[in-house]
Amino acid sequence: MVTLAKVLQDDISKARERKQTMMMKGLLAVLLVLMAISSSMGKPEKQAEKKGKRVPQTLSRGWGDELIWAQTYEEALFKSHSSNKPLMVIFHLEDCPHSLALKKAFANHKEIQKIADEDFILLNLLFETTDKHLSPDGQYVPRILFVDPSLTVRADITGRYGNRLYAYEPSDLHLLLSNMQKAKKLLKTEL
Amino acid sequence: MVTLAKVLQDDISKARERKQTMMMKGLLAVLLVLMAISSSMGKPEKQAEKKGKRVPQTLSRGWGDELIWAQTYEEALFKSHSSNKPLMVIFHLEDCPHSLALKKAFANHKEIQKIADEDFILLNLLFETTDKHLSPDGQYVPRILFVDPSLTVRADITGRYGNRLYAYEPSDLHLLLSNMQKAKKLLKTEL
Repeated sequence: MVTLAKVLQDDISKARERKQTMMMKGLLAVLLVLMAISSSMGKPEKQAEKKGKRVPQTLSRGWGDELIWAQTYEEALFKSHSSNKPLMVIFHLEDCPHSLALKKAFANHKEIQKIADEDFILLNLLFETTDKHLSPDGQYVPRILFVDPSLTVRADITGRYGNRLYAYEPSDLHLLLSNMQKAKKLLKTEL
Repeated sequence: MVTLAKVLQDDISKARERKQTMMMKGLLAVLLVLMAISSSMGKPEKQAEKKGKRVPQTLSRGWGDELIWAQTYEEALFKSHSSNKPLMVIFHLEDCPHSLALKKAFANHKEIQKIADEDFILLNLLFETTDKHLSPDGQYVPRILFVDPSLTVRADITGRYGNRLYAYEPSDLHLLLSNMQKAKKLLKTEL
C-alpha cells in the first residue's frame, strides 16, 4: 500500500504540472496519503465490492443499532458543541479481528450502551480524518478518542497500553466505562 | 444562527486565551463557523433528538437504498481514486422540501440509479466539508458536484440555474443524467 501512496503522490504531482486551476492542493494530498496508509491496515473497500442482495448500510455498523450515530467528524463536532455533550470517536476496520471483538463487547454492554445513548455524541469511522489531534500517538485500530464540547481532544483519557494509549480490548470495558464517565466531566466545569 | 456562529467564535477565542495545548486551531475554527452557517439552512440535528422506537440510520438516507454509499468525503475520495470511478457528492438537508423532492425523483429514476450503481462512487452529506472546491458558487442545498478520480472537482459540470450552478430540480433529471455521463468521461482521457 506504500506503492499506492506513491502512486497517489505521483498522480498529484503530474496534475499539478498540468496546472489545472481546479486542482486540489496541499491538504488534500496529505489527506490522501494518510488515507492510503490507514486503509492499508485492512480493506474497508471490500464491502463496496460485494454484490448480490444488498441491505441498506447503517451508520452504527454494529456498534449499537439503537444509538444515534453522526455521519462525519464535522457533523459530530457541531452536535457536540451545540448539545454540550462530549463526543466519542471510535476508529475501527471491518475486517480487523481486534476491532470486531471490541465492537461485539461494546454493543452487548448494557451500561455502556445506556451512557453512550444518553450522554454522548457518537461517531465510528473507518477512515482517518485530517485532524491530527485525533491521532496523538499514531493511527491504529481499534482506537477511541473523546472530544470535549469545547472542541478539545481529551488526549488525557487513555486506556492501559503504553504503546497504544487509546486502544481497548474487550476485557477493558470497565476502564472504557470509567473513561466515559471522566469525559462527561466537561473541561469548563473543571476550570 | 449568525448568533450561534458568533458564540462558536467567542468560545474558541476564550479557549485560546486559556492557552490549552490540546486546543484545536485555525482550520477547526473556520470549519465550525462554516458548519454553523450551513446548518442554519435547516435543522439536521432534529433527527438526533427524535426518541421512541428507532430504526438503524442508513447511509443512503433515501437516495437509493440499493446503492453503495461512502460515509465520509475522505473515504469517497479514496475510493474514487482507487477504483478510477468519478465521485458524485449530493448536499442536502432532511427537512428541505427541494431536497426531499429531488431525492424522491432521484431514488425512483431507474436509469440514474443504474448508472450511479455501476459507474460512480456516491456520497450524500448533510454537513459541509472543509474543501472549498465543493462550493464553487456557495453553500446551498440541494447541490450536486462531481469529482474526477484525478481529484479534480468538475466545476464545469453544471445544472441550468445561473444563480445556483449545481442545483437540480426534479424536472431536471434528464440533465443530471447527461451530466453523469459527462462525468464518466474522465479528465485523463481528454488530455
